[in-house]
Amino acid sequence: MIGKAITLAILGGTGQEGGGLALRFGKAGHRVILGSRDAARASAVARAMNETLGRAAVSGTTNKEAAAAADVVVLTVPYAAQRATVEEVREALRGKILIDATAPLKPPKVARVQLPPEGSAVAAIQALLGGEVRVVSAFQNVSAHHLRELGREIACDVLICGDDAAARETVIGLAADIGIAGFHAGPICNSAAAEALTSALIAINLRYKCPGAGIRITGVARDRELLRDSSE
Amino acid sequence: MIGKAITLAILGGTGQEGGGLALRFGKAGHRVILGSRDAARASAVARAMNETLGRAAVSGTTNKEAAAAADVVVLTVPYAAQRATVEEVREALRGKILIDATAPLKPPKVARVQLPPEGSAVAAIQALLGGEVRVVSAFQNVSAHHLRELGREIACDVLICGDDAAARETVIGLAADIGIAGFHAGPICNSAAAEALTSALIAINLRYKCPGAGIRITGVARDRELLRDSSE
Repeated sequence: MIGKAITLAILGGTGQEGGGLALRFGKAGHRVILGSRDAARASAVARAMNETLGRAAVSGTTNKEAAAAADVVVLTVPYAAQRATVEEVREALRGKILIDATAPLKPPKVARVQLPPEGSAVAAIQALLGGEVRVVSAFQNVSAHHLRELGREIACDVLICGDDAAARETVIGLAADIGIAGFHAGPICNSAAAEALTSALIAINLRYKCPGAGIRITGVARDRELLRDSSE
Repeated sequence: MIGKAITLAILGGTGQEGGGLALRFGKAGHRVILGSRDAARASAVARAMNETLGRAAVSGTTNKEAAAAADVVVLTVPYAAQRATVEEVREALRGKILIDATAPLKPPKVARVQLPPEGSAVAAIQALLGGEVRVVSAFQNVSAHHLRELGREIACDVLICGDDAAARETVIGLAADIGIAGFHAGPICNSAAAEALTSALIAINLRYKCPGAGIRITGVARDRELLRDSSE
């Protein structure tokens, strides 16, 4: 626990990746609000999650209301909806941390790295929002498949990139709350590494017929609390 | 062993990364020719390597002669010298596999991802060479520090990207010869992931004060022969 329970909005929380994060954060003791274009659907999905969790940790509403009510906002919508969603909730983000898990996947060739001309999809959002929001890139490389298997250890680390070190540290704490080791990996432009890696890991999934390849960082002394048996 | 000993040219073989690969390939039983702009220096470095290895596995000459005499050519020069070196040895590459370990680091900000406008430094070389050479991206994320500690297990996997699956497979075999697990990670454009990751890992090295952060791929059944205790 980062010290206290907070309220997280998961924009795109009815999707696979967002839903997985919502379940994990709810299980860890945080309050979670699923945001969606469809508030009724978000409420229904939240109810099902509460049944899974055995307690009322999750609620659902519009993206805008979810962002407004949250301490920290997590963006998990598809790349094609990333900018429009941010623009829609922009007023509600002011002064907050926005965790952006976007990878610029362009269907159908999602196993090909296709970074945007700006270099990084998440860095482009930080440029859009300017100093009013601290954007932190995280969670691109954790498979939704593994997130949703609540009984299972998540054998995957995440790269945490952002221009504000304190915001990165908060996100590393939130990742630790759900059993994921996050590593300070440099400024927001370095999000390009996590974004490109997403397509490379999809290529590995296809080639080796596995549902959720990920990475572990080696060569760094790991927090003993997070050290697990990493033999897959 | 990929089945037989081959001759590898390591262009930039007097450098840290190239030298580390040369020592490992020499130790594995392959013949290695260090290429350098300075043939005398390459010969001197090769002599020192042979003393370390306890046998005459390594020789040194110009980049051009090294490439001409090799079965497989490995490029480990700094990014600023990548294109000029390839142009210099181009004739000698025809029909061969070129393993390009280049990451587009731009000093002094080597811990910032700065991919070239084409998206990937290695993909740009494949575009330059066209169908006459099969370019495979590999070894960007293995620290020279660990390569040179010959007694030490290399706790790092590598992403293997290239448009030719058979060439990728050959490089995975060569990586296995030196104790490194390589993973098919998609077409040559996916080299952007390994290239960007290089800067992110340098950022991790700086932040966590370690000499050689790397990655392991998780969630994939690993070749048992390559499975090591990965607790760092």
